[in-house]
Amino acid sequence: MVDSIPFNELKTRTIDGIEGLYTIISQDAGSKEVLMVAYANREALEKTLETGKAHYYSTSRKKIWLKGESSGNTQTVDEVLVDCDGDAVIYKVSEAGPACHMGFETCFYRRVENGVLRVCKPQVFDPKDVYK
Amino acid sequence: MVDSIPFNELKTRTIDGIEGLYTIISQDAGSKEVLMVAYANREALEKTLETGKAHYYSTSRKKIWLKGESSGNTQTVDEVLVDCDGDAVIYKVSEAGPACHMGFETCFYRRVENGVLRVCKPQVFDPKDVYK
Repeated sequence: MVDSIPFNELKTRTIDGIEGLYTIISQDAGSKEVLMVAYANREALEKTLETGKAHYYSTSRKKIWLKGESSGNTQTVDEVLVDCDGDAVIYKVSEAGPACHMGFETCFYRRVENGVLRVCKPQVFDPKDVYK
Repeated sequence: MVDSIPFNELKTRTIDGIEGLYTIISQDAGSKEVLMVAYANREALEKTLETGKAHYYSTSRKKIWLKGESSGNTQTVDEVLVDCDGDAVIYKVSEAGPACHMGFETCFYRRVENGVLRVCKPQVFDPKDVYK
């Protein structure tokens, strides 16, 4: 997709002291699995809409981040949805490799079960093989 | 569900100056539609796990909020998933009425289309009839 977004209808949040961020949910367009939650600033959203590849803003590294720049697992963005109050955005993505740096299709690979976080998804790669 | 969560494996964020929050995605367990994004603090997560009904923390009203306390559209939580870095949580919900106070099944009822936010879901109730 190549598109632009009316930023005047969006509302930023300040996350851990970093201003100007939107919450981004990356959702697989096919399986509808929620793959990850991250943040984007205006520039990251603009780059996503210009290139059709998911960009985020890393609150730890304090910079724009093309998903897949290290792992090769980029996310093609088919559709961008905005919520009622304009502070959260869904990237509907396809052709996405495993989203999680821990080697899972989704970052949500653990569920609460009897007071512990139990892994409930298969690991599809070993992070040591991908991040060198 | 009645369960508890190992908070030492979670990581809070500070949102608009409010400490101790987790990002919560509410996802329909059947359709897998993402219904809404909101926040919870520890108490809201604990109440959710104790009661099986989705609770959140309102950053505008600065208090815990039982989803549906005004609209009647509570969310039964079947499963709670946690992401790799522990700051985001999915409530998999069922028996949920329309999630959005604007009268839509999901808060993500608008998509970016040629530079505007276009409504792409049917409105299922008139907010004036529900919030009096």
